[in-house]
Amino acid sequence: MIRKPRLFTPGPTPLLPEAQAALAAPALHHRTAAFRGVLDRVRDTLKYFFGTTNEVVFFTSSGTGAMEAAIANFFSPGDRVLVGTAGKFGERWVELANAYGLQVEKVESPYGKALSADKIKETLQQLGDLRGVFFQATESSTGVRHDTESIARITRQIRPDALVVVDAITGLGTSELDIDEWELDVVIGGSQKALMVPPGLSFVSVSDRAWQRAKTAKLPRYYFDLQKEREAARKHDTAFTPATSLLVGLVVALDRIHQLGRANLIRNAQVLADCTRHAVQALDLKLFAEVPADALTAVCAPSGISSNDIEKQMNEQFGAVVANGQGSMKGKIFRIAHLGYYDFTDMVGLIAALELVLTSLGYSCNLGAGVRAAQNRFIELVASVREPASR
Amino acid sequence: MIRKPRLFTPGPTPLLPEAQAALAAPALHHRTAAFRGVLDRVRDTLKYFFGTTNEVVFFTSSGTGAMEAAIANFFSPGDRVLVGTAGKFGERWVELANAYGLQVEKVESPYGKALSADKIKETLQQLGDLRGVFFQATESSTGVRHDTESIARITRQIRPDALVVVDAITGLGTSELDIDEWELDVVIGGSQKALMVPPGLSFVSVSDRAWQRAKTAKLPRYYFDLQKEREAARKHDTAFTPATSLLVGLVVALDRIHQLGRANLIRNAQVLADCTRHAVQALDLKLFAEVPADALTAVCAPSGISSNDIEKQMNEQFGAVVANGQGSMKGKIFRIAHLGYYDFTDMVGLIAALELVLTSLGYSCNLGAGVRAAQNRFIELVASVREPASR
Repeated sequence: MIRKPRLFTPGPTPLLPEAQAALAAPALHHRTAAFRGVLDRVRDTLKYFFGTTNEVVFFTSSGTGAMEAAIANFFSPGDRVLVGTAGKFGERWVELANAYGLQVEKVESPYGKALSADKIKETLQQLGDLRGVFFQATESSTGVRHDTESIARITRQIRPDALVVVDAITGLGTSELDIDEWELDVVIGGSQKALMVPPGLSFVSVSDRAWQRAKTAKLPRYYFDLQKEREAARKHDTAFTPATSLLVGLVVALDRIHQLGRANLIRNAQVLADCTRHAVQALDLKLFAEVPADALTAVCAPSGISSNDIEKQMNEQFGAVVANGQGSMKGKIFRIAHLGYYDFTDMVGLIAALELVLTSLGYSCNLGAGVRAAQNRFIELVASVREPASR
Repeated sequence: MIRKPRLFTPGPTPLLPEAQAALAAPALHHRTAAFRGVLDRVRDTLKYFFGTTNEVVFFTSSGTGAMEAAIANFFSPGDRVLVGTAGKFGERWVELANAYGLQVEKVESPYGKALSADKIKETLQQLGDLRGVFFQATESSTGVRHDTESIARITRQIRPDALVVVDAITGLGTSELDIDEWELDVVIGGSQKALMVPPGLSFVSVSDRAWQRAKTAKLPRYYFDLQKEREAARKHDTAFTPATSLLVGLVVALDRIHQLGRANLIRNAQVLADCTRHAVQALDLKLFAEVPADALTAVCAPSGISSNDIEKQMNEQFGAVVANGQGSMKGKIFRIAHLGYYDFTDMVGLIAALELVLTSLGYSCNLGAGVRAAQNRFIELVASVREPASR
């Protein structure tokens, strides 16, 4: 039997076909007029994708590189920062801040739970001087959506000078993030997520407050130097050799997103996530996330079945790549992505495959019941809400 | 919402991704050693795909070009031939034979029915001299499978000198066709079907008996001259400029089919067709074909609903392109392909979309019921039959 390889992982996600074709175009040299046009267009449309008037800087790196930039460019040795952590990527903020010698305070929630804005408020009130607050818009390891707006507003209110630093690598293009209105100082993105291109590019939007801070920040930086990249951008250039083919692909994807409308891209993920949650519950499976994100759905493996086997069988029987849990969640949950280039047909195909895999692993489920729940939810959502206008 | 364009038409079919990448490779000149290697490999692996020791000649043309070659190369003005026709492509044999001034006898079955081997037998016995018998392995316009083996054996028995000419454009790679054992003299194929590459190449397998006949055949021919192409093939060449990029893509697709195994390719279509038929019936829809082919499933539009609307809504709501009926069947049936690069996830996604489209058109159907029937059938088929060994 033919089994088409299909990614349902929350990054990398399926490539937009037009962007994929562009990736294979002949190489451009990065110091040419043609490529400067690509850079300018990327920088313009990235602002549209982020939904901000702030400058958006990119690096040739994974998302973690941009997270590192968010530490190295705005802080000085010994600065006290607060990290809200509730999963593997929250822990990454802690590791990064520690690696650079910051004084790290934490507000933790267990895996599967959202950060408590109240607890963050209390902690902010208790702590003295504080230079930054770090968290995720969406914690990809658990499928949880944190309340970015509340955390940002509380921080601004209690510690007006602290920078609000948001890892929105899976949050962008899947949830409303009003960077300007909520005064998010630093927001991180990655190419292999809702942007529908391969990994290799990371993004940082930087507020005026953050640029001011950068002037006095004393942590060492070289490759991930945001000011250097900003200066290069003013010359329609980059500080170092960029991943030219990825940028050529990204222009195409960003143009497509512009055409579709950012709100429609977000709504697409929201509808698919909502339908998937209904399917999962119709199969008597439990959602792992207390407050589920729309970028991905984390599902608890049913009692007696390891998500290792679900992951393996989805791939072997149907070519579908779902994500296992990470760290201590490995074997316990599996994750299904909705961000970027997915449509309803993808989701129901996946759900039908999941029903068969669970059945083959001995889980008693009603074949077709998940699909039916997704279909019914789709009718409700698509009938009740008109699509937002483009742009 | 994102709607991915997906072809479910019985040609063109979805491209094999590796072949698609090869199509975009830099151009080769057709009179070079590199391209001669491509030609030799295509010719070898085409024999494997056809499952014959006969020579397989290709043309740069649609399938109809190869059908024309099957007339022009083997017959002389006024030759009497029998055409078995039960649909649009049967009629094409009649048109072609008339265009070349042959004396055409017909055995007809109505659209949706298979050819009657008994009626063909009777007719063969009644007719005097007869130079050829023409029919389809699979009539793509109605989704009917004709009994190629019986028709071929009857012909050979009653008219040993008549050529058996089979349009297997959608039959190849979807049904057992034992060209050598059943003594099929001329068999036609096309690139945009089970071969998973775009339209533009057609194929003709030619038996020794047919090559003998070609020597004395007096119909005019130039571009579609099989003997000229055979001579060119012996020089690792083609008579005229070939569609080089399609051939480069075809090599990749043929290699993949060789790796998968011809029997597995056929079984893939058979399993998907079987599951789809179960889904269709679970939705209380009627199959149009009396003897359904596995290349495609033709479904009757339910009472009061035009298949024009089904075709339109599948595309508008879900990006899925199904085929309407052709000719007098337009508006009455729709057709879903299984040939080539499809997998189970494709089919259940399509069925779920179809359920929603039918519901939106006012047809009362049990959401998820078609998917469930396909899933149950899939379990039966995949559990009960081991995959044939490769090669």
